[in-house]
Amino acid sequence: MREAPGTPLTYGGAGVPRGLVAESLRELLAEIRYRAPPKSGRPLPLRGHYAGLLRIGAVTLAVTTDTVGTKTILAEQLGRWEEVGEDLVAINVNDLASVGARPAGLVDTISVAHPDPAVFRALGRGINRGLARARCSLLGGETAVVPELLRSTDLGATAIGFFPPGRRPVTGARIRPGDLLLGIPASGLHANGFTLARRIVAKSGAPLAEPRPGATGSLGEEMLTPTRTYVEASEVAAALPTTTGLAHISGGGVRNLIRLNARVRFTLDAWPEPSGIFRWLAEAGGIGSEEMFQTFNMGIGFVIATRASGAEELRRRWTRAGLRDAQVVGRVERGSGVHLPHLGLSYDRYA
Amino acid sequence: MREAPGTPLTYGGAGVPRGLVAESLRELLAEIRYRAPPKSGRPLPLRGHYAGLLRIGAVTLAVTTDTVGTKTILAEQLGRWEEVGEDLVAINVNDLASVGARPAGLVDTISVAHPDPAVFRALGRGINRGLARARCSLLGGETAVVPELLRSTDLGATAIGFFPPGRRPVTGARIRPGDLLLGIPASGLHANGFTLARRIVAKSGAPLAEPRPGATGSLGEEMLTPTRTYVEASEVAAALPTTTGLAHISGGGVRNLIRLNARVRFTLDAWPEPSGIFRWLAEAGGIGSEEMFQTFNMGIGFVIATRASGAEELRRRWTRAGLRDAQVVGRVERGSGVHLPHLGLSYDRYA
Repeated sequence: MREAPGTPLTYGGAGVPRGLVAESLRELLAEIRYRAPPKSGRPLPLRGHYAGLLRIGAVTLAVTTDTVGTKTILAEQLGRWEEVGEDLVAINVNDLASVGARPAGLVDTISVAHPDPAVFRALGRGINRGLARARCSLLGGETAVVPELLRSTDLGATAIGFFPPGRRPVTGARIRPGDLLLGIPASGLHANGFTLARRIVAKSGAPLAEPRPGATGSLGEEMLTPTRTYVEASEVAAALPTTTGLAHISGGGVRNLIRLNARVRFTLDAWPEPSGIFRWLAEAGGIGSEEMFQTFNMGIGFVIATRASGAEELRRRWTRAGLRDAQVVGRVERGSGVHLPHLGLSYDRYA
Repeated sequence: MREAPGTPLTYGGAGVPRGLVAESLRELLAEIRYRAPPKSGRPLPLRGHYAGLLRIGAVTLAVTTDTVGTKTILAEQLGRWEEVGEDLVAINVNDLASVGARPAGLVDTISVAHPDPAVFRALGRGINRGLARARCSLLGGETAVVPELLRSTDLGATAIGFFPPGRRPVTGARIRPGDLLLGIPASGLHANGFTLARRIVAKSGAPLAEPRPGATGSLGEEMLTPTRTYVEASEVAAALPTTTGLAHISGGGVRNLIRLNARVRFTLDAWPEPSGIFRWLAEAGGIGSEEMFQTFNMGIGFVIATRASGAEELRRRWTRAGLRDAQVVGRVERGSGVHLPHLGLSYDRYA
């Protein structure tokens, strides 16, 4: 969903001033003032969040939409499409997971300049794997063959989820000082920051077909690793009343936490040392920590805010569900924004 | 939703053999075999139709997704974006209308090479108008600034609808010989066939800024006219048990009727003379009727199948709702496919 309009470096490098993106969005949203009558369903207010909520009869739906972005350019370079197929599902269901909704259905849009059956087969395999991980049905899709519009392949999807009986949306509004922040590791870069990451690789001259220093698989494969799916982690957490917030660390990096609640401070004083690929990108590109943490997930793909009193039970339930790699990454304090004290970093705004 | 993979001329001209598109889709769908457990909601089978259906608790949802396609290239040439903004909503809610679902929510994806606040403002105005016509809420969206992926602007959306208490999906399965086919006029080309239409205009040398022979507004404006919204027409029709089918005449032209029911023949023996823009395109491009009727809506944007016994009541209700331009365009017979006897045309397959 309408995420942070990128990072200064990313857009700056592409000749797109970040302010122009924000201004464009303001202009768009200022014009969309129509309010539908109650017989058309009732949207629930949740501005700037990961998903839109819609009440129809006794059911509350969550809806989110996102594209894989320029990670498809790497897929094309490597001739591998399963990974981005899986990404397409994962990035959307992880946004549903960020409001505590259970994924139910997905529709995809595959836009290509030229159709290649082998590419579609690989995409299908990846999408299927993503659906299985999220326990989500494919409801349909659209294929657009538009060589005049596209330079490369564009992958988008919309996911629809719902709140099972007895479960309410987890919005972050109840987060308060004293809550703990637990993080679940990312599988890699996921599908964010690729415009910058590809530029760093190109500048460094590092070959995609060989491992970076300290890695085993090739750099290309390492970067292409599909986005981890956090649906199960969210399902377990959202069932506990002590869970107060859920955040997919997607475009915008740790700043995503501000989407949950702007009236508390997220102090990430136990964020683990980022894994090798992030350290390598920072070094190879000469990118500072401030830029790295607001562009990439930096090793943690999903953050859960919980009352300190509920953390033990949450970990117990995750362990029963086979999820053993969650760790404390910080805590909630009085104040606002996101703070990484050991790095001297502070972010005030999501976008 | 995954529509007819275009027309031979269109794709042939662009160097994309139509068979390759169909083969790519087959490969994709063959890989997507995952079936979610019942606790994730229950998809209802409706293969090849306008929308996917999903049952959650007591609510049945309809979901559809579509892009404006290359009509955005015309918008860019003319520097006018309100019309395609309205199209983006209309093409999606019209697909919901084709299963008798009431639109509730929409999410959009606006992908651009460079953000332009004035373009976004105009798009917002058009989207807002489309939402108002469909009585639908905007639930969110995604903005992608991806100059490396895009040559031009790509507009996609997903619409979610539902069936109010007492209403069941209108799938076309109950259509039988003897049913009447009523048609509601299109506002123009809508958002289909633009790759071909733009090629004809370019070949003819006709200036977009001047009217074609016999028209008043400029050719560009005439082509850009937004897609008519058929939500109200469908709402009225879907409430009657005598309504057996609803069809948005979108990509694939009259062949869309085959999506409703492959075991009856749709005989369009009263199809009105297509309006001026269609006649002009056929003449200027030297395009035969077979190609025209399987690419463009040919003046009728929505077709309703009804028991003959229900036609009068349907027209009465439409009139009460202010809808007065529906007309009989044909009837259902034994057989299969779509037949236009006065033109000697037959279509056996949707795609």
